[in-house]
Amino acid sequence: MAEQITPRSVDYSRWYTDVVRQAELADYAPVKGCMIIRPYGYALWENIKAGLDRRFKETGHVNAYFPLFIPMSFIEKEAEHVSGFAPELAVVTHGGGKRLEEPLAVRPTSETIIGHAYAQWIRSYRDLPVLINQWCNVVRWEMRTRLFLRTSEFLWQEGHTAHATAEEAIEETLRMLGVYADFAINDAAIPVIQGKKSEREKFAGAVDSYTIEAMMGNGWALQSGTSHFLGQNFARAFDIKFLDQNNELQYVWTTSWGLSTRMIGGIIMTHGDDQGLILPPVLAPIQVVIVPIWRSEEERTNVLEAAGRAKAQLAAAGVRVKVDDREEVSPGFKFNDWEMRGVPVRMEIGPRDVTRNTVVLARRDRPGKEGKTFDVPADGVAEAVKALLAEVQAALLQRATEFRQANTHTGIRNYEEFKEVLAEKGGFLRVHWAGTGEDEDRIKEETKATIRCYPLEVEEGPGRCFYTGRETERVAIFARAY
Amino acid sequence: MAEQITPRSVDYSRWYTDVVRQAELADYAPVKGCMIIRPYGYALWENIKAGLDRRFKETGHVNAYFPLFIPMSFIEKEAEHVSGFAPELAVVTHGGGKRLEEPLAVRPTSETIIGHAYAQWIRSYRDLPVLINQWCNVVRWEMRTRLFLRTSEFLWQEGHTAHATAEEAIEETLRMLGVYADFAINDAAIPVIQGKKSEREKFAGAVDSYTIEAMMGNGWALQSGTSHFLGQNFARAFDIKFLDQNNELQYVWTTSWGLSTRMIGGIIMTHGDDQGLILPPVLAPIQVVIVPIWRSEEERTNVLEAAGRAKAQLAAAGVRVKVDDREEVSPGFKFNDWEMRGVPVRMEIGPRDVTRNTVVLARRDRPGKEGKTFDVPADGVAEAVKALLAEVQAALLQRATEFRQANTHTGIRNYEEFKEVLAEKGGFLRVHWAGTGEDEDRIKEETKATIRCYPLEVEEGPGRCFYTGRETERVAIFARAY
Repeated sequence: MAEQITPRSVDYSRWYTDVVRQAELADYAPVKGCMIIRPYGYALWENIKAGLDRRFKETGHVNAYFPLFIPMSFIEKEAEHVSGFAPELAVVTHGGGKRLEEPLAVRPTSETIIGHAYAQWIRSYRDLPVLINQWCNVVRWEMRTRLFLRTSEFLWQEGHTAHATAEEAIEETLRMLGVYADFAINDAAIPVIQGKKSEREKFAGAVDSYTIEAMMGNGWALQSGTSHFLGQNFARAFDIKFLDQNNELQYVWTTSWGLSTRMIGGIIMTHGDDQGLILPPVLAPIQVVIVPIWRSEEERTNVLEAAGRAKAQLAAAGVRVKVDDREEVSPGFKFNDWEMRGVPVRMEIGPRDVTRNTVVLARRDRPGKEGKTFDVPADGVAEAVKALLAEVQAALLQRATEFRQANTHTGIRNYEEFKEVLAEKGGFLRVHWAGTGEDEDRIKEETKATIRCYPLEVEEGPGRCFYTGRETERVAIFARAY
Repeated sequence: MAEQITPRSVDYSRWYTDVVRQAELADYAPVKGCMIIRPYGYALWENIKAGLDRRFKETGHVNAYFPLFIPMSFIEKEAEHVSGFAPELAVVTHGGGKRLEEPLAVRPTSETIIGHAYAQWIRSYRDLPVLINQWCNVVRWEMRTRLFLRTSEFLWQEGHTAHATAEEAIEETLRMLGVYADFAINDAAIPVIQGKKSEREKFAGAVDSYTIEAMMGNGWALQSGTSHFLGQNFARAFDIKFLDQNNELQYVWTTSWGLSTRMIGGIIMTHGDDQGLILPPVLAPIQVVIVPIWRSEEERTNVLEAAGRAKAQLAAAGVRVKVDDREEVSPGFKFNDWEMRGVPVRMEIGPRDVTRNTVVLARRDRPGKEGKTFDVPADGVAEAVKALLAEVQAALLQRATEFRQANTHTGIRNYEEFKEVLAEKGGFLRVHWAGTGEDEDRIKEETKATIRCYPLEVEEGPGRCFYTGRETERVAIFARAY
């Protein structure tokens, strides 16, 4: 029997862990802070990778692979970078039975080692832009970990580009932010807000950091992908220069951008309910599960035949489909099991359906009778299923968008109101903001809310900062965040 | 200008490094023994991955991801395993600024940490078989390194399966060996010999190791993929048990199998010539390069238009195609450049071709006039190109097979002859063998040749061992090896 999933209203954090464990997405590893991504979770990651990798290639990027180990001296070359990452490093001190002359950091991110390579490769403006991405594992030593959201080792992609001008680099930074947003919205059905990070929250070594921020089911924010304009900081630290068209030596302008297995946590917490996972059809490893229902041996034969035909039809139409023909568990058990695992559409086939040459379709996002369609003709069912998958995909995005709208609070006039709304309602607090970094620190200390971003799309016009009372054009979104 | 590639006859080892560096497949990294896989090399690896991953999934396997770090105590649990891998470990002693209580090995291979996970996941015969693969990086500290062939960090896949019976596990071991051979022969155009490793050469912790062995252009052998039957060694070390159908607790039987970026070295050394790389069309990142040839501005416009049409036609037919429209280099330079990079087919389009609505096709595997076809009609050229790519693929396999046959020596009657043939001709020495492990050690010390494998396919029948003089059925292939 499946164990109980803690309801979200009782303990959101336990609900999350229950879902991850019971849906067999991931497991804690014997090494503190590390995780095992189980086959079902990894299949989801494979679909995320495919969706992103296609977009990266369409925008002219190529993949490469740089070493896992980075000499400590490299990390120390960019002053802000080292102060940001040094406390989180895992360090290799011994190799092949001997103490190393220089300790090696296990990469927490690869700006430094890639910067070193670019300094060798780039000579002239003809070599620019360099548009490289890498898919890899990175390590940031974490004390408090949570599966997918914050683990010492995680999988991600990191793009690293070099350009002849600041304008081109900024354009690239925003292009890739747009690629992340497009992926999040259209593939993951997560409505994200594109915005700029505050000075306090930006990447260690960046001039400007941009982010896509999503709202989770408990109203907290999840930073789901970031894109950084690095200016010439790393170019200067690693001496990455090129001869421009006037034959003058210039430093390049660089960017970096990353999205990780954290996105899986975002999908879980955007769409999941008390029954478990709900996966967006575009990314679901299994889009349709067929549950055959029978009593007698004769029924069994007929029903399994019909299930096989439906499966072949769906697979030929490019649908990811599985027949659950287990003998040792009941159809009711299977319904619950696949609901818990978030499969978007269930097809039921019983003896009555075989007689009538029909099937029953049930949507995961609308549990119970309301989401069921009876008597769907078995001939041409692939088209009906594909339409339903598209409908579920759109419905998930719409629901998440409505949820975010309902939990975004505006018109906050002062800090008292801010604290009240945050404590009573949570969610996103969208406010005018003219405070300093120190003000931001104070608010974080007192309320745990941080500036998630300055959204790129602003319709508000100027207004009064809730904290300083100063008139400003700048809008910020505050929230509790993972 | 491109640098010179050292001819193979002058220095095979330098030829190899020249090709890897000049074709921009890989670079040495600032960390000793590590490499940077550059975009062109990584694109080749992506195609290798796709070819293998498809085969793994067709044979019922799923992907997952296990942690990079393995507690030292895990590695020590299987006695042979630790003695094999301990000298090659990179060890993390510090994390997050503190000394760790237990040092962590950076995975050299993952039998131990995966064994630990399987012990948690497997309860009953219903959970078996477990058929999991992972794509990842591994680290084995190496003193003498060579790009792709032997580096401290490399990329690979490692399959780890668990079964209810020894028979099933052995069947899986051989099935995956067959998958590797199928990939090597049909995708990489490398004729490999499937065989069993000698006791001396088998994997640390295996009962039996199997290998696919390829012959490189200098007659040396390259172990290109291995598949291991692990018996119950790891099951006992990690307590991986299941309740069988009679409700009795049994240890599982496990296998593991791996293929790495080393395969790229194998492709280079199987097919390359003094002009550089020759890539098999199935795996080539660029299958066809179109070189437009013009003098006047008007010719340029017409020729580039024709090149664009040909490109569109090829891309629509699923051919990986690139137009080299660089202005700053001559057509002759481009010919040499793409030959050096191993692109299987070159299409030339000049003003005369535009007038006649034709193109010129040139095969990389047959340099000069002999490999050129003139006046190929531009309409429907995609079909002609696809046929030519298939022809090149088949020709590469045939040439490599003939080379191996020509350099495989049989009928060796005694150790004197063995040493003579090895010194004068090199290649594979296919002999009857009834020696001991100590005999094998002695031969290795005296001649540097090792037993590459006991081939699975043997037609010889019984014969006399060249070393011991004893009558035996066993056939061995001896060779120098990477």
